[in-house]
Amino acid sequence: MHDLIRDLRETNDTKIILLVADGLGGLPMEPGGKTELESARTPNLDACVREGVCGLSIPVLPGITPGSGPGHLGLFGYDPLQHRIGRGILEALGVNFPVGPRDVAARGNFCTVDDAGLITDRRAGRPATERCVAMGRKLQEIRIPGVELFVEPVREHRFVVVFRGDNLGDAVNDTDPQQTGHKPLEARGQDAASQNTARIVNQFVAEADRVLKGDAPTNMVTLRGFARYPKIETMQEVYGFRPAALAVYPMYKGLARLVGMEVVDAGSTLGEQMTTLRKRWNDFDFFFLHYKYTDSTGEDGNFQAKVEMIERLDTELPKVRALNPDVLIVTGDHSTPSKLRSHSWHPVPTLLWSGTCRPDPVTEFGESYCLRGGLGQFQAMYLLPVAMAHAGRLGKYGA
Amino acid sequence: MHDLIRDLRETNDTKIILLVADGLGGLPMEPGGKTELESARTPNLDACVREGVCGLSIPVLPGITPGSGPGHLGLFGYDPLQHRIGRGILEALGVNFPVGPRDVAARGNFCTVDDAGLITDRRAGRPATERCVAMGRKLQEIRIPGVELFVEPVREHRFVVVFRGDNLGDAVNDTDPQQTGHKPLEARGQDAASQNTARIVNQFVAEADRVLKGDAPTNMVTLRGFARYPKIETMQEVYGFRPAALAVYPMYKGLARLVGMEVVDAGSTLGEQMTTLRKRWNDFDFFFLHYKYTDSTGEDGNFQAKVEMIERLDTELPKVRALNPDVLIVTGDHSTPSKLRSHSWHPVPTLLWSGTCRPDPVTEFGESYCLRGGLGQFQAMYLLPVAMAHAGRLGKYGA
Repeated sequence: MHDLIRDLRETNDTKIILLVADGLGGLPMEPGGKTELESARTPNLDACVREGVCGLSIPVLPGITPGSGPGHLGLFGYDPLQHRIGRGILEALGVNFPVGPRDVAARGNFCTVDDAGLITDRRAGRPATERCVAMGRKLQEIRIPGVELFVEPVREHRFVVVFRGDNLGDAVNDTDPQQTGHKPLEARGQDAASQNTARIVNQFVAEADRVLKGDAPTNMVTLRGFARYPKIETMQEVYGFRPAALAVYPMYKGLARLVGMEVVDAGSTLGEQMTTLRKRWNDFDFFFLHYKYTDSTGEDGNFQAKVEMIERLDTELPKVRALNPDVLIVTGDHSTPSKLRSHSWHPVPTLLWSGTCRPDPVTEFGESYCLRGGLGQFQAMYLLPVAMAHAGRLGKYGA
Repeated sequence: MHDLIRDLRETNDTKIILLVADGLGGLPMEPGGKTELESARTPNLDACVREGVCGLSIPVLPGITPGSGPGHLGLFGYDPLQHRIGRGILEALGVNFPVGPRDVAARGNFCTVDDAGLITDRRAGRPATERCVAMGRKLQEIRIPGVELFVEPVREHRFVVVFRGDNLGDAVNDTDPQQTGHKPLEARGQDAASQNTARIVNQFVAEADRVLKGDAPTNMVTLRGFARYPKIETMQEVYGFRPAALAVYPMYKGLARLVGMEVVDAGSTLGEQMTTLRKRWNDFDFFFLHYKYTDSTGEDGNFQAKVEMIERLDTELPKVRALNPDVLIVTGDHSTPSKLRSHSWHPVPTLLWSGTCRPDPVTEFGESYCLRGGLGQFQAMYLLPVAMAHAGRLGKYGA
């Protein structure tokens, strides 16, 4: 698909906005009820729906519940099965660590070991985050020849460690034995580069044992989810446009940076994001706006709060329309039904507005209405090519 | 897919008709309006719709606007991304030149060069087609050892040249420098076979320079879109039926010939095509009928004329029904909305009629009605397998 787009793409001065309401899709709380989106009063979204075309996005494949990484990669036009973002890298992005192509990242846990070195608490009694920060500072002092080392606290017992160097593979097992009464596992690599990483990891863990010796209950570490920085062509390389990310939370900024977007300082509220969008309107062709609160309220199981977050988004929409984008997409990276308090596999309501939409019968934004929409049910990774077509940015395939 | 069909196909005496209304899909001219197809009075198509099943065909992939080649290959059941028909070959098909497996074809332009050999007009002042024919005759006299050479005029400054021989590649650059003030570019090949072609092309251009020297403004040529004859399994090999093409325009006859259809002399009007269909009914199992005027009126931006061309097609439909085909498909190879005056990426309204259709709620033929159809939105290349199933020509897969 990317080869095809590279062949067909055309340059013009059209503008595309991708507004991602994280976890937008939902479920009714009761049989016969409405979803969060269907319950919300959304006059501005509904006006777009009447002029645009709707459908339901399948983030990865039917039945597959995506994390934030695959969910966003699909919306950015990448096949989320082909491009995998390892857990270590995602965790590093989440704490705003600037991972790069020479990095292998892993999730770390502080744990408690007894005098024999056997783990007695895999989470070190869930220490206060302040202690996590202090212990992280100790780990940061460790030196291992041949690599740079970065330790970033996350919260409680969790931290991120990044090994930076040449020839580092990530086919390395987790050192967490997943049960107490065992020693941390030795790291082993599946190939030469990963054996190189494993050797360094074992040195790091030995050093951690030494520097944390007197610090029970946080007197040892386990590492999981070793992951290299993924090699991904940038959106500029594939689509030929200048992409910008206007996100508030580090993980989404990091995901945008992975695909080559310029991460713009967009403030910390939706209102500030809108102001930034207006100010930087002439500097980019493609704008990714990320709105977190539809997901976090869904994860909290707070149906009414999710409804309110959708309504808040709706009230900001006229600011987007006022810029006269050529294509406006409103969708989610996955569903987060309040009823399930988690991400889910349910297809995601999607709206595409442009001047070249074929009419469909949908007049309100909502899951059941989108079922009748002209976009049908589609894999998320095809949404951006469709947006490019509507923006006049894709030429004809074949004569 | 083709391997599967080859395994499962069965032979019987059923008949399938694929009626392609070129560029059938459209758009309303005004928000809230109807498309060309929705505006047309089509009682005979609507009767088929009520008994059959409808849907929307995606010619290549969502957002991709196909040319005639990929659009038709999809309807013939071939993956248009796997089989590419180069521009030179398509141009040769368009002038009814019988390209074959040893051919490399290119599009040619007559151009004007000054005494220093620099191009002053890339289109030689758009000469009359008579002059194009006369100059083509001069080029046809050129002899190059090791290849046969065919020069076919198209119109104005455009012609086709076909090099026939062994070991000719088509990874050869265009010789058109795309701007005036430069000499035509030297042809270079990317591999051994293409270097062979490039050497011959450079000889041809040198000879053209010689024979056209006194013929300003048509005193030089540039060549573009070098393309080999594509290797495609025939429909008979894949589907096991005897396919016939009833088309009026050379390009569609050529596309049909590429996939092994027998191109039947079908006259020059839809009425004559219908007569031919009836006469040759017993000679074939599969009939491709091509109707051009829904596309050409769309390309002209003439909404009302496209409506009339659809209505004219509708009035001929009873002649098709009278033959009692087992399966009748009416669709397009792509959309050509009058509003856009060009091919587009919008899915194409599709109707499949047979005695084994499951009912759907569609009662009229049109883009928005087809959204509710039982075929859903589907990739064009799956339509012919579905037709074979309805014709009882596909056995069970697995036990």
